[in-house]
Parts: sequence; structure tokens; C-alpha cells
Amino acid sequence: MAATTEVPDKGVVLLDFWPSMFGIRVRIALAEKGVEYEYREEDLANKSPALLRLNPVHKKIPVLVHDGRPVCESIIIVHYIDETWAGPGRPAFLPSDPYARARARFWADFVDKKIYDIGARLWRTKGETQQQAKQEFVEAMKLLEEELGDKPYFGGDNFGYMDIALVAFSCWFHTYETHANISMEAEFPKLMAWVKRCQARESVSKSLPDPLKILEFVGVLKKKHGIE
Amino acid sequence: MAATTEVPDKGVVLLDFWPSMFGIRVRIALAEKGVEYEYREEDLANKSPALLRLNPVHKKIPVLVHDGRPVCESIIIVHYIDETWAGPGRPAFLPSDPYARARARFWADFVDKKIYDIGARLWRTKGETQQQAKQEFVEAMKLLEEELGDKPYFGGDNFGYMDIALVAFSCWFHTYETHANISMEAEFPKLMAWVKRCQARESVSKSLPDPLKILEFVGVLKKKHGIE
Repeated sequence: MAATTEVPDKGVVLLDFWPSMFGIRVRIALAEKGVEYEYREEDLANKSPALLRLNPVHKKIPVLVHDGRPVCESIIIVHYIDETWAGPGRPAFLPSDPYARARARFWADFVDKKIYDIGARLWRTKGETQQQAKQEFVEAMKLLEEELGDKPYFGGDNFGYMDIALVAFSCWFHTYETHANISMEAEFPKLMAWVKRCQARESVSKSLPDPLKILEFVGVLKKKHGIE
Repeated sequence: MAATTEVPDKGVVLLDFWPSMFGIRVRIALAEKGVEYEYREEDLANKSPALLRLNPVHKKIPVLVHDGRPVCESIIIVHYIDETWAGPGRPAFLPSDPYARARARFWADFVDKKIYDIGARLWRTKGETQQQAKQEFVEAMKLLEEELGDKPYFGGDNFGYMDIALVAFSCWFHTYETHANISMEAEFPKLMAWVKRCQARESVSKSLPDPLKILEFVGVLKKKHGIE
């Protein structure tokens, strides 16, 4: 059943859906900043009146509601969290140098433009279409691995904006591997070492669902949509 | 012929293509900040080695090259310009309040996700497909008009980030009107008054190509691609 209770005027509420990589980004960002919040699971087949009212333009999760005011679109929410909960004792997601900031934004935007769509094609399609998606996936991940290089995190020594944008996808990797017959470990060793490094952080590990549950969820989705 | 000269290590160079609304955004942003730069017109049918080297991921204009380092994706470039040429005497594109910043980013992102694609369908398609695009266009522009409300600019009293993101499309409005039989003035009077307000700024007027030239350019494009 959809939540029918209204969102309070004070405090932080997250409208979310557990397997969403976009929602996961926001969960990680809030955890990194130590922000307490109320988590509300949405039923996307029966969206709550609160979701429809708070994100009338896209009608999508995640929506972060801060003191009654909604912020939508995951990467914009991460930006908002970084700027709102700033100062001593709070890690900054973006570096201070404008060029380094532009670079982080560029690669997060690359993830938004490429990885979600290609990833969905890995499990939704078969045959030649899937092979094409697989080739695009490998190319995109190689670019990301190259951008990471030998740094511990994308921004350098500190876990930040671009790490949050990409690591949220890592719980889907097992699904991509299983459906499209890819070995992430063999293909992208540096990137997978980076995933492990990120997952050692509590903010990440507690925000990521079990990859086996994602695989199961995708199985259910495929059946529902009649995809073999 | 594509430019073959390399980009200098110092100063600001813009790789651009005159009808591009994405390039126009960058031209407006640089003019607002009073930044001197070298404009380089690209031939998109024969991209320069400099463009391919400086934006190997997307291979698209605009690319802003600052002291030899490239920044890609128009809205990220506008952000970069805002943060790089900041301080006394330079207008800030984004307000300081995090919520107002998130709101500006949300609507600029809306323009990126909706207006370019819908706009292209207005002149590229016919019949039912075009009618569908027309309906989507009207809906999207109504949302934008609602967000503008009775404010002089999207951010309030000052011309800024979201104004730059959207006004760059205004030289295409005549093409949309002509090909899809829309009267912008009748449908969106507040938005068109805002366009005039923006165009009264030299930064905007000198960055926007003549709408009749855009219309002619689209005519040539349609012939080239065999669209009636």
C-alpha cells in the first residue's frame, strides 16, 4: 500500500525504492554527512500522493524532503546534501578547485548518461542487442577505470562525489555479470578493487542492498514484463 | 576544413558550432563574466583533431579549453565559468542558498532532458509524431513558465544559471514555430517577455545567432537528411 501520511514540515525524509542506484546515492551521501532521516519505501506501481505532489515533474524517486521542501534528481540531491551539511566535521564531497569539481561533475554525468541505460540493456535484451550493450558496457567501464587510474578514489585520496555516483551501481554488477556473462573482476580489476575500498566504508555497506536480492528482483521484473 | 592548429597552453579557447544552443550557453556565460577568449568554429562533419583529443569521450562541442585543460558538457562548463571567474565585479550565476542552487540545477537539468529532444522532433517529424512532440513541448514550456512566475529572471532579480541554460534555446523558437505551427507569443506570454528581457543584455544578444539563419540552417539539414 502506498504511504498516505503527509511529509512533516521539519526534518529530513527520503522517498526511495530499495534497489534504486539513484536512491542508494542519496543514502550514502546522508550517511557520509551523518544526517538522521526517515526512510520511506515507495511502491512504484502505486506511487504515494506525497511522491506525486513533491515531484510532480518527473514523478520519480529519490526525493529528499528537507523541512518540507523537496529536492529531486539524485545527483542534484547529492550536491544539495554536500552544500547544506557543510563545515567542520563534515566531509566535503566536491574538492575546492574548480577544475577538479568540473571533472567530478563530468564523470558523474557520464555515469548518468551511459551506465544506467547500458546496464538495463544487459539484462533486458538477448542476442545481438545484448552483445552490443556488452561492448558498450566494457568500453564505458574501461573509460571509468582509466579515469580512476591508480588513485584510491576518483577525486584522489578522499571518497567523494564521483565515488558516490558510481558505487551505487555496484550492487547491480552481479546482475550484469550473470545476465550478460561478464567477469567484472577479470575485465576491470582496478575498478573492482575500488568497489571493495568503498564498500569498506559503513556509509556504503549499509546503503547497498544484497546483490543476490537485486538479481532476484530482476528475475521477478523479467517475468512480469514477459522477458525470457 | 577542420582546424589543425593546436590549442595554446595559456588563455581561453572555445570550440563551438554557431547554431548550437549548448555552445551559446557558454558564449553567454563568458560574456557575462567579461572573459576574453578565442572562438573556434568546428565543422561537425569533419571534426578537428583538437576536438577529438580534448573531448575523446563525447567528441562534441562545446569544449572550453582553459590554460590547455578541457571542460566539456555545456552546463558543467557554465558551472566551471561561474566558479573560476568569481569574486568582486563578477556576477554570480548561482545564488548562495543551497535550496535555491538545487532549484536552479533542477530546472537546467529539465531543459537538458526535455527541450532539446522535443524541439528536434518539432522540425524533424510530421503528422502524429509531430503532434505528440507539440503537446510535450507545450507542457514543458508551461512548466517553465510556471517556474518563472512573475519574477524577472528564474533565480529572482538577477540573471543567472537557469536563465543562461534556457535563453540559449530562444533563437530556435522561430524554427519551432514555423515547422510545428506554434505561436510562442500567444502560448507563453510571460516566457516570451522574459526572453526579451534577457535579449536586452549585450551578453545574450551578441551570443545568439539570427533566428532566420537557424531556420535556413534547419532547411539545409532537412534536405541533407532527406526529410520533407
